[in-house]
Amino acid sequence: MPAIKPNRLLGDLYKLRTFGTYKTGVHRPTFSPEDITARQWFAGRLTEAGLVATVDGIGNILGKSPATGRKMLSGSHLESQNQAGWLDGALGCIYALEAARAIHEAGGDNGVDVVVFVDEEGHYGSFLGSKSFTGLLQEDEIDNARNRYDGTPMRDALARAGYAGRPRLQIEPERYAGFFEAHIEQGDTLESEKLRIGVVTAIVAIWQYGITVTGEQNHAGTTSMMRRRDAGLELVRLLSAIDKRFPELDGPRTVWTTGRIGLEPGSHSIIPGRAEALFQLRDADPAVLDRLHAELFKLADDATRAGPCKIEVNVISQSTPALMDEWLMTALDTAAERYAPGRHIRMPSGAGHDAQWLARKLPAAMMFVPSIGGISHHWSENTSDEDLVLGAQVFTDGIAEALKG
Amino acid sequence: MPAIKPNRLLGDLYKLRTFGTYKTGVHRPTFSPEDITARQWFAGRLTEAGLVATVDGIGNILGKSPATGRKMLSGSHLESQNQAGWLDGALGCIYALEAARAIHEAGGDNGVDVVVFVDEEGHYGSFLGSKSFTGLLQEDEIDNARNRYDGTPMRDALARAGYAGRPRLQIEPERYAGFFEAHIEQGDTLESEKLRIGVVTAIVAIWQYGITVTGEQNHAGTTSMMRRRDAGLELVRLLSAIDKRFPELDGPRTVWTTGRIGLEPGSHSIIPGRAEALFQLRDADPAVLDRLHAELFKLADDATRAGPCKIEVNVISQSTPALMDEWLMTALDTAAERYAPGRHIRMPSGAGHDAQWLARKLPAAMMFVPSIGGISHHWSENTSDEDLVLGAQVFTDGIAEALKG
Repeated sequence: MPAIKPNRLLGDLYKLRTFGTYKTGVHRPTFSPEDITARQWFAGRLTEAGLVATVDGIGNILGKSPATGRKMLSGSHLESQNQAGWLDGALGCIYALEAARAIHEAGGDNGVDVVVFVDEEGHYGSFLGSKSFTGLLQEDEIDNARNRYDGTPMRDALARAGYAGRPRLQIEPERYAGFFEAHIEQGDTLESEKLRIGVVTAIVAIWQYGITVTGEQNHAGTTSMMRRRDAGLELVRLLSAIDKRFPELDGPRTVWTTGRIGLEPGSHSIIPGRAEALFQLRDADPAVLDRLHAELFKLADDATRAGPCKIEVNVISQSTPALMDEWLMTALDTAAERYAPGRHIRMPSGAGHDAQWLARKLPAAMMFVPSIGGISHHWSENTSDEDLVLGAQVFTDGIAEALKG
Repeated sequence: MPAIKPNRLLGDLYKLRTFGTYKTGVHRPTFSPEDITARQWFAGRLTEAGLVATVDGIGNILGKSPATGRKMLSGSHLESQNQAGWLDGALGCIYALEAARAIHEAGGDNGVDVVVFVDEEGHYGSFLGSKSFTGLLQEDEIDNARNRYDGTPMRDALARAGYAGRPRLQIEPERYAGFFEAHIEQGDTLESEKLRIGVVTAIVAIWQYGITVTGEQNHAGTTSMMRRRDAGLELVRLLSAIDKRFPELDGPRTVWTTGRIGLEPGSHSIIPGRAEALFQLRDADPAVLDRLHAELFKLADDATRAGPCKIEVNVISQSTPALMDEWLMTALDTAAERYAPGRHIRMPSGAGHDAQWLARKLPAAMMFVPSIGGISHHWSENTSDEDLVLGAQVFTDGIAEALKG
C-alpha cells in the first residue's frame, strides 16, 4: 500500500496558508494576487511531483500523470471565501497531490491526475471551474460574470492573471476510472461522534425559494390592529408555522434556513405593505424534498386563505442530489477501516462541492475529515494535524484500492 | 353662532392643492418651491382676513388677530409627505383660517390667531416648527438638521426660502385661552362607525424598541438543525410570541408594529448570526404601555433562557401621551352634537401632531373628520366635501363655544 509522507503533506498545507494569511486562516479570493501566486506555486509542486501541469483559460489547473495504467482524477479548489479557513478547498488539492506522489512512489502502472477547479467559492459565479472542466459552461457565461463584491468583469481578472486567450481544458472521461475529492466536514457530526473519517454518500440537493407577502402599507399609529394587512406579520406567522410543522415531516439530516428577510418600506412607523424572505431546503432524499416542498406551498396557501395578505412562493432553484459511486465509497470504507477501525461513517454532504459536477461525467467519491467545533467559512476553521495525516493516508489508500479495479 | 362659508372654505382647500399637485394629492416637501409658494399664498390669505401675518426664521407663520377680547390659537402644517394627500395638515390650516374669518364676521371682541408650524412631516427633523414656537428648539438643532432624502442643510434651505436671519416667533401663552387643531382621522374608525366628528382625548405615546438577537453565523448546509443558533429563527419565534400574547393584554386601541427586520449576513446559504427588528407600541394609557413594555422584556428573557440565542431589547424612545383639555373637548362635543347629533365620538389620536407640543404650553384640543377608506400618507387620501364643510362648521363652533369662557 502507498505510504503518504506526513511532513511533506503538512509542509505543503502550511505553505498554502502563507498565500493570503488572515489570522489563523486565509483571505484568498479568486484571482486576487495571493490566489494567482498560490496557483503558480501549486502548478510548480505538480511539476516537481512528475506531473505535466497546465493552467487553462479560466484558471483551472490540471496535472497529468505519465502513468500508463489505470488513472484516477482527484482535486478540489484553491481560492477561499473572504477571511475564511485555511483548509476549505486547500485540503482537497494537497490530498490529491499527496495521493499522486505516494501512489507514484509505491510503483506500478497506475496513477493520479490532480485537478484544481477555479472559483468553487463563487466570487464570480457558481462552480464556474468544475462546470468549465465538465463542458457545462458557455463562453457568454464568462463574458457576463462579474466579481460579486467589486463588480470586476471576470474577463478583466483573467487577463490580469495572464490566463486570457488560453484554451479551457475539458475532461477526458475515458481517461479516468473515477473522481475523488477530500474536504473538511464543515459540520460537527464526526467530532461529536468521535469519528475520524466520513465517506460521503451524496451531495444534498438545494431547493431555494423566494417568499413574497403582499399586504397594505399604512400608518402604524392610526390603523387599528383589526384593519391591518401587515405583510411583515403574515411572513412571521408563516415562518413560525414552518418552524412548527417541518420537524414533523423532515428526514434525519434535513436542514432549512431563512437567510434573508426584508420588509418594505422598512420604517418604524409604517405597517409593511410588502415582505420578502429567502428560504432554502437541503436534503439528499428526493422524497423528503418533495414532501417539504408541498408543505411549504400548502402553508403559504393556508395563510393566504386565513389571513389578510397574499403570500406567493416562487422556486428560485432546485438542484438534484449528486449520488456518490458505491464502488468508490466501498474503497474508501475499506481504507478507513484499515487505519481507523470502527471510527468512520457514511454520511451525506450538506454543502455543495465540485464533486457534484464531476459526478455527471465520472463515478465520484468524497471523503471528509473532522472540523474542530464544526466551524466553517470562518478564519478559525481547523482540523488537528493528527486527523490531517490520517485523512491523507485513508484517502490515498482509498484511491489505490479503487485503482486495483 | 358664527357661520362658515362653504365655498370660501372649499375654494381655499382646492387652491392649496394646486401647489405641488400629484395625481389627486400633493407632493409638497418642506422648503420645496411649491411649499414656499404655498406659504406665501397662505400668509396673503391671513392678511386678507384682517390678521397681521409674519413668516419667521424657521418658516413658521403666525397670523395675529386684532381682537381685543379672549383669543384662541389654531393651526396645523402646510407641507406634505412625499407624493401624499392634499388634506393632511392643509385641512387644519384652512379650518383655522375659516374659524378666524367666521368668528370675526360674527362680531364681538373675541378672535382667533392662526399658526402654521413648519415641517411637521419631518423632512428635516421631528416637529421642528412646533418645538420652535413653544421654545423647545435650540439653534444648534437647526444647524445640524439636514433633509433626510437629499442631505440639504436646513440652514441652506432656509436661506434659499428667504427666511434666514429673521427671528423665530415664540408663543405668548398668556395671549391664548387654548389651542385647537383639526386634522383628518387617518384611520377608519369614523367611517366604519358612520360617524362624522372625532373629538380627540389624547395623542398617544409612542414607545420604540430595538430588538437584537445574537446567535452564531454558520453554514446553512452543514450545520444540523439541532446544533444551530439561528438568530433569525429566534427573532421569528419572539415576534410570533408577541403576536399571540399582546392581544391578551392590550387596550381597546393599542397598536404595535414591527416595521423593520434585518438578518446578518443576509445570504441564502448562511444561518444568520445576528437579527434585528424595530418594534413600536402606541397607546394613550400609561398603564397599558407599562403592561406591554414589561411583557415585551419578559418574552425576550424567556426566549433567551429557552433558546440558543441571546435576545436584547433596547428602548429607543418613550414619549408620554399628550392629554387634551376637558373644557375644550366639551366645547367640541357641544358643537358636534349641534350639527351632527349622535354622530360624534371621543377617541385618541394614534398619530403624532403639532398639538402634542402645544399641549405643553396651553390647554389643547383636536378634532378629526373622516378619512375615506382610512387612507393616509398616500396621494389617494380624501374626505367628502360634505364632511369637510360640516367639520369646519363644528370646529368653528367649538372654538366659539370655548371663547365664551
